[in-house]
Parts: sequence; C-alpha cells; structure tokens
Amino acid sequence: MIRVPYDQLEAALARALEPLGFSAERARHCARLFAETTRDGVYTHGLARFPRFVAMVKSGVVNPSAEPSLVAAFGAVERWHGNRGVGNLNAWSSMARAVELARAHGIGAVFLAQTNHWMRGGTYAWQAADAGCFSACWTNTMPNLPAWGAAEAVVGNNPLVLGVPRASGEHVILDMAMSQYSYGALAGYAKRGQPLPFPGGFDAAGQLTTDAAAIELTQRALPIGLWKGSGLAMMLDLFASMLSGGLATCEIEPVAEKESGVSQLFLAIDPARFASGPELERTADAVIASLHAAVPVEAEKPVRYPGEQTLQIRRENLTQGVPVDEALWEQLQSRAY
Amino acid sequence: MIRVPYDQLEAALARALEPLGFSAERARHCARLFAETTRDGVYTHGLARFPRFVAMVKSGVVNPSAEPSLVAAFGAVERWHGNRGVGNLNAWSSMARAVELARAHGIGAVFLAQTNHWMRGGTYAWQAADAGCFSACWTNTMPNLPAWGAAEAVVGNNPLVLGVPRASGEHVILDMAMSQYSYGALAGYAKRGQPLPFPGGFDAAGQLTTDAAAIELTQRALPIGLWKGSGLAMMLDLFASMLSGGLATCEIEPVAEKESGVSQLFLAIDPARFASGPELERTADAVIASLHAAVPVEAEKPVRYPGEQTLQIRRENLTQGVPVDEALWEQLQSRAY
Repeated sequence: MIRVPYDQLEAALARALEPLGFSAERARHCARLFAETTRDGVYTHGLARFPRFVAMVKSGVVNPSAEPSLVAAFGAVERWHGNRGVGNLNAWSSMARAVELARAHGIGAVFLAQTNHWMRGGTYAWQAADAGCFSACWTNTMPNLPAWGAAEAVVGNNPLVLGVPRASGEHVILDMAMSQYSYGALAGYAKRGQPLPFPGGFDAAGQLTTDAAAIELTQRALPIGLWKGSGLAMMLDLFASMLSGGLATCEIEPVAEKESGVSQLFLAIDPARFASGPELERTADAVIASLHAAVPVEAEKPVRYPGEQTLQIRRENLTQGVPVDEALWEQLQSRAY
Repeated sequence: MIRVPYDQLEAALARALEPLGFSAERARHCARLFAETTRDGVYTHGLARFPRFVAMVKSGVVNPSAEPSLVAAFGAVERWHGNRGVGNLNAWSSMARAVELARAHGIGAVFLAQTNHWMRGGTYAWQAADAGCFSACWTNTMPNLPAWGAAEAVVGNNPLVLGVPRASGEHVILDMAMSQYSYGALAGYAKRGQPLPFPGGFDAAGQLTTDAAAIELTQRALPIGLWKGSGLAMMLDLFASMLSGGLATCEIEPVAEKESGVSQLFLAIDPARFASGPELERTADAVIASLHAAVPVEAEKPVRYPGEQTLQIRRENLTQGVPVDEALWEQLQSRAY
C-alpha cells in the first residue's frame, strides 16, 4: 500500500476512464466518487472495486455513456430508467433530483430501474446531507442471502442507507447491508483462519457458527437480526422494484457472475421550510451527547454514532495521501487500463 | 382464554372507554384498533395492553380528548403536535393525513411530536395498504436497549414498520422492533425456564447467551444485527425527533415507568399516478412466488413473507371468536373499568 495525494489519484482514475467511452466530465465525476470512497476509509467499495468496474464497462455490462431517462413524474415523485449506465453516476443524479424535489415539496423521491451497482451507498447520503437534507436510499441486489428458513439464497443483502445532516458537516450516515457479514469479510476471516467475532451464518450441521470457512461452504450467511433482517431485505426489494418498475431480486440474472439491472430508491427531505435549524442542531447534539456519555462495555471504546470516524479518516487521507494498492497505482500510471 | 365474537369485543372496549373522557366516536375507533390487533393475532399489542392503557388515561398521562394539531406545513410534508393524546388515534390520523398528501403529491410525510405509544405499529401500514399506498412509519421509545458497545440502555427499540399494498388485500407488512427479542418475550422464556432459540443478549460475563433470565439481570438485550441494529435505532430516533421537533429517546422521561411524549414519522407513497396496477401486482407476485419456491431448511416450514399469516388468523378469529383473557372479559362485562 502506498499513499497517493488525493488530486493525483482522482486524475489518474479519470484518465483511465476516458478512453472507455466516458465524456471528460463524466470520467472526472465517476473517478471522484471512487477516489472519495477510498479517501473516506470505505476501502471495500472504492479503488478495490475499480478493476472489476472497468472490466464491466469493457465487457459492455455497464454502458459508460448512458444517462438515466425520466419515465414518469407526479408531484414529488419521479420514476427513472437507468439504461444500464454507470451505477455511481446514475445514483448521484438520482439523489440530486430527489434533493431538488425536496426543495420544491419538502420531500422528494426518485425510483430508479435498470441501473448498476452504486459502489458505496453512503456516498449519496453524504451528498444529500451536504445539501442540508435528510435522506434514505437503498438498492436491491441479485439473490445472495438465504431468506430466514430457506436453505438457498433468495433475498439480496440490499444495502440500506440513511443520512441526517448537521450544519457542522459532521453528518450521521448509516450504510449497511442486510447480511451480518459480507462475503468479502467472511473470505478475509477464512483466509486468516480467524473466528468471526460473532456468529455469521450456519455450518453444515445447521448450527450458528463463527467459522467463516464453514459458512462459505454452506453459503448460508446470516441476515441481521435473523428473521427480522430477512423480512427487511424483502421489503426493501419490493419497494425498490415495484416503485421503479424495475427488476426484483429474483429477476436479476447475474452477468458473468456480476449483477446488472438493479432497482434503487432515493428519498430526500429538506427541513428548511418547516423546521428551525438551531432546533435541529440542538436535538442532534443532545442525541450524540447521550451516546458519548453512555458507560461503555470496554472503557477505552466509547460508543460511536454511524459515520463518526469518516471525517477524521478523510482528514488523515487528505493530509498523508490516500492508501492505494501499489500494483493498481502502477497500472494507473502506465495507463494499463 | 375464551373466544368472544369480534363485534361484542369492540363494543365492550368502547363502553369501557367512553366514561374516561372519550367521545363516542373516538371510543369506538380506539376500541376498534385494540380489538383488531388481537383479531389479527398480534396478542402482545392488543387487549394485553388495554388495562395498562386505561391506567395511563386515568392517571392523566394520556389525554383522551386531545387531538393532534398542525404545527407547520410545506408541500408534501406536515409537522403535527400530538398533545399527548391517545397514541393509536394520533397515529391513525397521522397516517390518514400522509395518505392524503400522497394522493396529492405522490408521496406524503407527517412528523408527529409529543404523542403516546401507538400500540401495534403494523396497524398503520395495513391502513395505508388498504388505501393502496406503500408506507413506512416508525416511533422512538424511551431508552430501553444498550447501544452497541454500551453497558446501559441509551437507544430505544424504536419499532419500524413497512407496508406494500396488494390489490388482493394480502398486503406485505413488516413490523419489527430493533431488539432481537422484546423484554416481554425474554420474561416469557425466563418464566418457562426455556432457552431462547437464538442468543438474545449478554450475560454477566459479557458473553452472548440464550439464557433469558441472565439477560434480564444484565438488561443488555441484543440489537438486531448487533452494531447494525444499534445504528439503525439511532437513525430512526434522529429522523423522528428532529423532523417532528419532538423529544429524542434521550429526552423521554419515563412517567410511572411508562414512556410518554414520543416522536413518530409517517410516510405514504401512492403509486396510482405513476405506476400501472397490473405491473405492480406482477412484480409482487414474482417476489412472493420466489420465496415460496425456495428450498426450506425444514421441509414442513416453507419460507414466509412478513405478515403472511395475518389474514388467515384474522379469518379464524372472526369465525371462531377473538381470544380474550377470561378475567379481562369479566371486567369488561361488569364495567369494572
């Protein structure tokens, strides 16, 4: 791992994208979203996914020049078709539109069909929060998680993102999938031969286990909250697919083992016209203070709110350079993409 | 337990409420919501809570004649003050208003401050679904669940409800709290000396346990998905309290060990003006068929969608009579309330 100045990283990614059929502006924007994700410490969903993303563009699964098109609109709600374009750009423009609708109506919703993996879901809640809006967004995925009581994957891990804006920029951002551990995390524990800190799925005997390798064998990863997360995953899928007119999890066919054509939902609430800013700050501060004041289980580990570490990691990575895999950086420098 | 014809039950509950300061119409409506909850098989949140509810009305914690008042409105969003009125009636009128806003704008949101326990949250998703709307609603609670990493209760179990309408009336309704097991459920297992089916909290040694009595001692019940449900509970609290201008979990003072003055959020989406009904049905049917077709872990236990059993239980209880605790029924008959 080497550390690369943020601007150099973003520029290198943009240079890699342009020859693939991106306009200069869209290459820059897509590069920025990848680079910002790693800058913010979400290493699993930033640069680590760039090579696979480039492969999907090259293979035609992701159309680099396709932009979303409006399908239907009524009041504060719009339905868009993603035309199987670039997942993070489609998601960005959808949340931007939801924020515009929220400016006009207090609340706005965009339902997006036929789009691609949005990479870091939290990106769009930070986007809305920077615009002063509360937000919720989620995506469905291909089937990758057993429903509760099922021996095979029939629901998606359907990441759910919620964001609460704060004037200080220290937004509260929750970005979580419906599986207790991602398959990526399970693979890491299995490779290192480490037990999971908490049970993460079922072994061949049908027992809850902390043995990541055993879960990889059964493919029976655990939904958060057991039957509860399984039910929540179903609901998120029904909302996203029905409201967008797009594909449900059960209809998403893997393309070269990757998913394409997912359905997403973007919701923004602009409090500016019905709530007082200082009052909002006062409540957020009180909630966060109460968490920080809680007696921790381990004295050196105070309770944190979702996203609390992001700004600190961002500052560090902006100061010291963003951590980049050396091989990837060489490829980017040699324009091997 | 005896079985009482539904109409007799509703009438008896209404007769019990009227002398407490309810108008005839509001007594009937409040009685209906209690009776319907038990009719639908949600026994923990229906009649079982009626005596406690009556006590809270008598002690003045719940004001039986207070109706919500509009505080602010902008576009598709409204802020209401619940005036510490009757929780289920306040919630019902809030969801009704969210549905009206959704009719006009595609989506509508009502943020409700200073209200009381809404009893069964699923009630309001059934209400919206019967009106053809998708819905989401949630409530905060007093602190009753340790945040992840905290040794004391600092978040609420903040029930979250999502509803998807289907033309057949077989709506998909998720109604779940952020705790893996309620304290009521834990008490039941502890009393029977039964282990929990899955770990439900921490014992005195800080280990996950299926020993309900040990969890009652530590009061460290488990959030769904461990750190994930803890984070989700915080977000639901921030949304409900900030957007309504009401109390956050950390600000809700227990009144005689019960909570009062909670904050709630009601969201409705009316798809009629931007989506085709047959297309919505087709997608919902496909998702449900895929769940039912999944290979189950236990052959005799097919995978179910959230709320799937409700209509069957409702039919049984309407045909055979609603199960009512005999002592409660005698009290209602003798007008002991």
